[in-house]
Order: sequence, then C-alpha cells, then structure tokens
Amino acid sequence: MNGIAFVQGASRGLGLALTRQLLAEPAGHRVFASCREPTRATELGALAAEYPDRLCLVEIDVTREETISAAAEELGQQVDRLHLVINVAGVLHGPGFAPEKKLDHVDPRALRAVFEVNAFGPLLVAKHLHRFLRHGERSIFASLSARIGSISDNRLGGWYAYRGSKAAQNMFTKTLSIELGRVAPRAIVVGLHPGTVDTDLSKPFQSNVPKAQLLSPHRSAASLLSVLDGLSHEDTGKVFDFRGEEISP
Amino acid sequence: MNGIAFVQGASRGLGLALTRQLLAEPAGHRVFASCREPTRATELGALAAEYPDRLCLVEIDVTREETISAAAEELGQQVDRLHLVINVAGVLHGPGFAPEKKLDHVDPRALRAVFEVNAFGPLLVAKHLHRFLRHGERSIFASLSARIGSISDNRLGGWYAYRGSKAAQNMFTKTLSIELGRVAPRAIVVGLHPGTVDTDLSKPFQSNVPKAQLLSPHRSAASLLSVLDGLSHEDTGKVFDFRGEEISP
Repeated sequence: MNGIAFVQGASRGLGLALTRQLLAEPAGHRVFASCREPTRATELGALAAEYPDRLCLVEIDVTREETISAAAEELGQQVDRLHLVINVAGVLHGPGFAPEKKLDHVDPRALRAVFEVNAFGPLLVAKHLHRFLRHGERSIFASLSARIGSISDNRLGGWYAYRGSKAAQNMFTKTLSIELGRVAPRAIVVGLHPGTVDTDLSKPFQSNVPKAQLLSPHRSAASLLSVLDGLSHEDTGKVFDFRGEEISP
Repeated sequence: MNGIAFVQGASRGLGLALTRQLLAEPAGHRVFASCREPTRATELGALAAEYPDRLCLVEIDVTREETISAAAEELGQQVDRLHLVINVAGVLHGPGFAPEKKLDHVDPRALRAVFEVNAFGPLLVAKHLHRFLRHGERSIFASLSARIGSISDNRLGGWYAYRGSKAAQNMFTKTLSIELGRVAPRAIVVGLHPGTVDTDLSKPFQSNVPKAQLLSPHRSAASLLSVLDGLSHEDTGKVFDFRGEEISP
C-alpha cells in the first residue's frame, strides 16, 4: 500500500504502531497523524523529527467537531486526496467508569463518553474527510471495531457501553459504505477487529487473555495493514478481524 | 397474555394504542403507563378515568435517569412483579434535526438526542425494572426497534443517527437477554419492528410508503401483542417484525 494516509488517534498504542509502520514501508507513505494534544505526544513527536517530510501531526479531539473540521481545512491546504483513513481512538474505561459487569453498573455518563469517541468519532471524521476519498483511485476508510461489537457473536453479555458503541459504529460503517460507494466506486469502508492488543485500553483485562493471544501493537498493526492491503470492493461495509476473517453483525 | 404490564412512552401513537389494547383484553391487564408529562397527556388521562383500578400513570423522561429510578420506586410500592415491559418512546426527528439524507447532515447534537432516547432509554429502564422481571413466571422485556436498525439489511444508506441508535439498542437487547437469562430463565428480551405506523414519528416520511403498507397504531399494536404472545424462550435476544418474522442483526 502506498499513498497518503490519515491515522486518527495516533499518540500511543495501536495508532502509534500503525503510523510507524506506514512510514517504514518501503513504498513510503506520507502520513497525517492526529491526537488530542500533539505537543504532549512524546513518541509521535520523536517520529515526526525522524520523518520531517513525511509525517505531519494534527490536533483532533473527536468529541469536539470543530477540531475535526479545522484539521480537514489544514489537510486541504497540503493535499487534495487521501488513500487511507484509519480511526483508532477508542474508549473502554475512563475516569469513574469501567466496562459494566452487570446491568446495575450501567451509567448514562459512561454511555455518553464511550459512544462519543467509539461511535460518533469515526462518523464525524468521515463527515469532514470524505471529500478527500472521492478521487478515482483506490481508497480505504477504516475504523477500529471489536469482535465484541458483533451482536450475533455475543455469548457472554456485559460491557454494555462498549458493545453498544461498536455495534453503532458498525452500522455507521455499513451506511457510509453505501453513500461513499455511489460517488467513489473504488472506495472501501470497513471495520477492523485488532485482536486483544497489549495497550492501555486492554491493560486492566489482560489477565483473562491467554498470553499467546495477546498481540503486541506492532504485530496487530502489521496484520491489520496486510488485511487492508488485501481488501477488494466487495468487502466494503463489512468488519474483518486481524487475520482477515469477516465478523458478521 | 395477562398480568401486570409497563408501557414506557404511552402518551400517544403506538404506546397509547398498546396501553389501550392491554386494558381491553378479556384477561385484563393491570397497566403502568409512563410518559414525560402525565398531567398533559390528555388521551392517556381519559383512559385512566375509564380504568381507574387498572391503569396507573407514571412520569418518566428516559433522558433523566432519576425519573426512571423514582418510577421504579413508586412501582415497588404497588407491585412486586411485572409480566411485560415494553419500551415505545423513540426519536427520529426533533427541533432542528431530521434524519440525515447524507453524511454532510450528520450533527453531534442530533446523534446525542437520538441515541439518548432510542438506545440508552430502554437500557436504563432495564436497569431499574429488571428486579420486577426476576420472578419464576414468564416475563417479557421488549423495545421498539426498527428494520432499518439491521446492519445486514441496510441497502439504502442514510438516516445515520436513527439506524445507529437502533443497532445499539439491538446490541443492548442481546446483552440484556444473556444477563437476565442467567437469573430468570423464563424471561424473554426482544426488539420489535412495528412496521411503518401512522404516527407523528413517521408523518414526514409517509409519502414514500405505499398506502397499503402504512399501519394504524391499533393494527400495529394488535400485531405486536400477538407476536409477544407467541414468543418462547428460544426467541430471547432477537428482533421480530410485526408479523413475527425474525430480523437478523
């Protein structure tokens, strides 16, 4: 894969690993990498110093739409197209809330916080960046989903806010694939399940995961980029895991 | 079906029709009917005057959790169980927003308003009422979903907020069915697609619907109650249309 990429949520974990690999690929992507506070993103800053001509940091907080529209404006001054947009930012736990073990733990404040980032975030990014994907070349709009966002695959219950937000995101992916498909036949819109990755998001829950199943951000990122590479237009609107297997809604 | 029912969102349209029919059934339900402003719900008030011993009006605004917990408290002073809870309140359009014809119309304020009622609402009702469903008798927790909340059935695109909110609600239905199933083996949790019903919600969009397909609230309510009557435990966690056909996620 080569061309111009946009990684939303790139300051750490999987987003940082994806950014690093896109830059390291022989073909050499140009990468726009967003996070909430670029000036405080130490590792991303170091990467920008290493690739001054190919990495550009952008400020986006998906809970404030004005930051997304400003980023799109800034982007438009530098490029007229993107070949890959990947939404990575996600919330599972936060100040005062954790995934609900049971119904009694459901909290409207947590629902709002989780949906705002996991579901509304990628949709608002699509709203402001879709004009960069409407060229005639192959383009991909991907969002980090999760296997537990599959309704049909749900066997264990719990984690209401996270599950619901990813199901909503999957609906947005499908809906967006239809709209974008009408004007950009070579655009592909997908959700991605990265596996259980050793990041801050999964940290409190890693004890439940067999060690062999826990992926490094590097390995998950490599797998996801390889899955994206192999996608064809028939795959648009769907969700795939890091091995390229489709996950049904 | 008989027993004690709770209709959330009963002041007009389908909720009012469901309440009326539950009261009119030969077996004679006792019904708790909620809406945001019981004192202003004229038709519901008239019905309460007609059935003073069997209909009790309750105030609930699902966007304010404290009204749900207060209603549960009030309920607990009168009964110790419910046989049917049905969530009807739903938002498709509102002040300053309508279903999005395209991505550019997506608005975070509309997303928040629609998800708050359609997705978070039924879940918060479940949080506060599930203790009334944990008896050994058959009980049903139903929420008004919609065919266009099905990700796999999405062919047309558009209507981002509404579609996403119903997909999230369907996930909550499935997740809740698992949790409730563990403690109340005879509890059934389902989503329901009422058809296109001639109510305020669908009014602006009825011109797109062939007349024969437009259902009166009375007819849709009768169909839905008949579907609920026929449900067995294997149906828990699923979504059914008004003809009793399953809608896949």
